[in-house]
Amino acid sequence: MSTPAPLCIAMHAADNVAIVANDGGLPAGTVLPGGLVLLDKVPQAHKVALVDIPEGGAVRRYNVAIGYAIQSIAAGSWVHERLLHMPEARALDGLPMATVKPPAMEPLEGYTFEGYRNADGSVGTRNILAITQTVQCVAGVTAFAVQRIKAELLPRYPHVDDVVALEHGYGCGVAIDAPDAAVPIRTLRNISLNPNFGGEVMVVSLGCEKLQPERLLPPGSIPLVDQRTLQQAPLDVVCLQDEAHVGFMSMVESILRQAEEHLERLNARRRETVPASELVVGVQCGGSDAFSGVTANPAVGFCTDLLVRAGATVMFSEVTEVRDGIDQLTARAATPEVAQALIDQMAWYDAYLARGRVDRSANTTPGNKQGGLSNIVEKAMGSIVKSGTAPISGVLAPGAKLAQKGLVYAATPASDFICGTLQLAAGMNLHVFTTGRGTPYGLAACPVIKVATRSDLARRWHDLMDVNAGRIADGQASIEDVGWELFRLMLDVASGRRKTWAEHWKLHNALVLFNPAPVT
Amino acid sequence: MSTPAPLCIAMHAADNVAIVANDGGLPAGTVLPGGLVLLDKVPQAHKVALVDIPEGGAVRRYNVAIGYAIQSIAAGSWVHERLLHMPEARALDGLPMATVKPPAMEPLEGYTFEGYRNADGSVGTRNILAITQTVQCVAGVTAFAVQRIKAELLPRYPHVDDVVALEHGYGCGVAIDAPDAAVPIRTLRNISLNPNFGGEVMVVSLGCEKLQPERLLPPGSIPLVDQRTLQQAPLDVVCLQDEAHVGFMSMVESILRQAEEHLERLNARRRETVPASELVVGVQCGGSDAFSGVTANPAVGFCTDLLVRAGATVMFSEVTEVRDGIDQLTARAATPEVAQALIDQMAWYDAYLARGRVDRSANTTPGNKQGGLSNIVEKAMGSIVKSGTAPISGVLAPGAKLAQKGLVYAATPASDFICGTLQLAAGMNLHVFTTGRGTPYGLAACPVIKVATRSDLARRWHDLMDVNAGRIADGQASIEDVGWELFRLMLDVASGRRKTWAEHWKLHNALVLFNPAPVT
Ligand SMILES: [Ca+2]
Ligand SMILES: [Ca+2]
Ligand SMILES: [Ca+2]
Ligand SMILES: [Ca+2]
Ligand SMILES: [Ca+2]
Repeated sequence: MSTPAPLCIAMHAADNVAIVANDGGLPAGTVLPGGLVLLDKVPQAHKVALVDIPEGGAVRRYNVAIGYAIQSIAAGSWVHERLLHMPEARALDGLPMATVKPPAMEPLEGYTFEGYRNADGSVGTRNILAITQTVQCVAGVTAFAVQRIKAELLPRYPHVDDVVALEHGYGCGVAIDAPDAAVPIRTLRNISLNPNFGGEVMVVSLGCEKLQPERLLPPGSIPLVDQRTLQQAPLDVVCLQDEAHVGFMSMVESILRQAEEHLERLNARRRETVPASELVVGVQCGGSDAFSGVTANPAVGFCTDLLVRAGATVMFSEVTEVRDGIDQLTARAATPEVAQALIDQMAWYDAYLARGRVDRSANTTPGNKQGGLSNIVEKAMGSIVKSGTAPISGVLAPGAKLAQKGLVYAATPASDFICGTLQLAAGMNLHVFTTGRGTPYGLAACPVIKVATRSDLARRWHDLMDVNAGRIADGQASIEDVGWELFRLMLDVASGRRKTWAEHWKLHNALVLFNPAPVT
Repeated sequence: MSTPAPLCIAMHAADNVAIVANDGGLPAGTVLPGGLVLLDKVPQAHKVALVDIPEGGAVRRYNVAIGYAIQSIAAGSWVHERLLHMPEARALDGLPMATVKPPAMEPLEGYTFEGYRNADGSVGTRNILAITQTVQCVAGVTAFAVQRIKAELLPRYPHVDDVVALEHGYGCGVAIDAPDAAVPIRTLRNISLNPNFGGEVMVVSLGCEKLQPERLLPPGSIPLVDQRTLQQAPLDVVCLQDEAHVGFMSMVESILRQAEEHLERLNARRRETVPASELVVGVQCGGSDAFSGVTANPAVGFCTDLLVRAGATVMFSEVTEVRDGIDQLTARAATPEVAQALIDQMAWYDAYLARGRVDRSANTTPGNKQGGLSNIVEKAMGSIVKSGTAPISGVLAPGAKLAQKGLVYAATPASDFICGTLQLAAGMNLHVFTTGRGTPYGLAACPVIKVATRSDLARRWHDLMDVNAGRIADGQASIEDVGWELFRLMLDVASGRRKTWAEHWKLHNALVLFNPAPVT
């Protein structure tokens, strides 16, 4: 096996660092293309100084100062995070407001997928019976009932993909009237209305919990119409404390009886051809490394542009991973109002973190640093690229439900499982997740397409990663190639023609709510 | 069927209200024993005024002013929560510090149970393989592996009761260096060391997460000794990102291989006779009503005294449910230092709630109010009685591990699932849970004995409630009778001779961590 040629990747002509692409990194003494000689061993995905950088000088990547040199750094040196001062966060005043007017994007027409059309106009990519729970107290009984539904009922309803208990840790023992309690409550409400659940809402309630069913799903929140009367259908609630329940099995039987009504309706549905504009894609990254911003995230960004051109909805998220690029985002906002909404979300999160005596720098992980990401500024620049180049047409508060198409900033924590939970609430019907270090992330409610940033990871995790964007660093594919591959895979997965690896193995992460309010 | 006689229960001779005990409440016009005539229909468990109470007058229950009359209330009226002003919280200065010197309690000797003695001296009531997880990211893979362990391995190890994945929503995407992050981290650490897990600690880690295995379980935190070398055994970690893992099944096989080592050791253990002093009992109440403080909680309190006399450990918890009785607790503290530690926990929680712009009154639920509890003061007086009469010998911060016996105040939120999670971390090997409205609460790691406050609930939930304390209100048993019944049942359950209903149905609530720090 011949040694591959040394390969370094710079993101912008003005950058004074590049990252080493080779598996295993490069040893000191390596001569890079162009003649620069490495002074240190540089691990894969880590940065090398392309020129001498004086003490206090800006270290530039993505044409942004990701830090300032603590000491002078000679060309050819390994630029690791201990050599950098992190810049202050960009102040939230004086930002460019909707100043970028990109040329209109050419519409992308003729792409379709096979989806489940819902009564409210949304489209599901899966046909799932979801069982909403008001409170953690009922989780054990509901899990017991779901096992029986899967064993006894589901085989009789072959057009239903799955039955999913929407378990969570909220609902009682919480300060439900605290101002910030609106976030977890609307998250749970809106998850119940996710397009993959076909508009069939059934609730298991305890009875004495703070989050009463009528508070979770007040009249009017569910677009359910009784077909016989054309009136708003009553909320379908199984209340365990109902006096009619005598004995445990009577509760289980109530849940099965109600589930069967919904299964019958779900089972009558069929996929139909719908335009690609019905995709509602949530993108996020997790277990990131310095390749995330070089391979997988730019490919996702290219695909985001394709989706927006096709009239679809794409959400990007992760507040602490865009905070340092807020000026790029406000500039790209479609209107000054959208720019202001972006600023409002950043300001809210800054204050939230400050209450806990931390700031955005709490985001980076040991794995990020091992993976070559020096700090949150560098990580953010690589994260933000998932959003492509389209104007930002809207902003969603955490847990809110989408009401528009195009590129939307859905404000969420960067935590993979919390971000995914909030994107489900927004109405996501397909999830794209890029990873450099590797994570077996999956959701029960929605297919998750996982994109590896490195070929090494894609090879080792061959039955967990759905797309290998590492081929971009290997020189075997362009960003455009991988972006198109991802776009086509999305249509296949959305249509149910392909399963993701997470679906194949039934790997499901928990719903983890964002609750900025106290518990009691 | 003859109509039962009207029955009202007052808690103290100085009280000016009593609660109606009869199923279905009592109609207006009912003549109570003693001649008082009801002016209103009074629901079961709700309060009736025993005398005329002037506007502004104190409404006394448990010999405490649970509120002040908003308007004058005539004798025989229904005293519901809308008629009461809630008192301010007791200030945390000037409290009586260890002023009560109760007569020494007579030791209770000769009671034993059959338990699993651990290397660190603690005793398990169950023999469970727990799989610790550093982060939610690995939950799907671990759940897959646990299914295979249960199907393929567990049948070969008949002395092992269960395999439990310690799933949680923490570990990454969190501000891990925030001051309050110490709470969830020590909670997870100490749960891994719960006596029911036999000292066998195995960890599944992703690799890039913030909560690295060495941070979760630093050297010295596990009392594991390699029997060949008598050195500290290395932490047993399966890291999914390990380069040796090629393909999903290689990760699963790694977990199975490691699990088998621990299963072999656990399977070699046998129960032995140990004194009742090895019980570590967590008591809490959930879904409370006005009977909680009349029947179930006093019976638990009597049993708490029995346990303390037997040399065992009893934890009571739920900060917002003792806050209004802090003067009783500081007075009962064994030393002024313990009293101060109580005050410190109350002050910390007051500040925590204030940061979220709420206070202790956020505790009560719709079910509490329907159940006759007017406010948190009344609820607290009924909750605190679970602690019996013994001196308080120690105070635990949330998530900390017990280091002493006797009656301990373990500070936790009142949320049932969060309180239970924190009591597991403290080292609980048996859980007692009282409920008036009814909850099917259970834990995978520890038996939960559920005590009903009302006979009506005990009858309807006959295969979920383990003890019926409602017989106290029915006049069929005394507090002492039920306290002794509970004590004997505890020894049977701890010995594995009896299963709780939650164990019978395998009803498990999730571990829900108390994380007062921000997520990122
Ligand atoms: Ca990310
Ligand atoms: Ca993420
Ligand atoms: Ca309670
Ligand atoms: Ca509780
Ligand atoms: Ca779960």
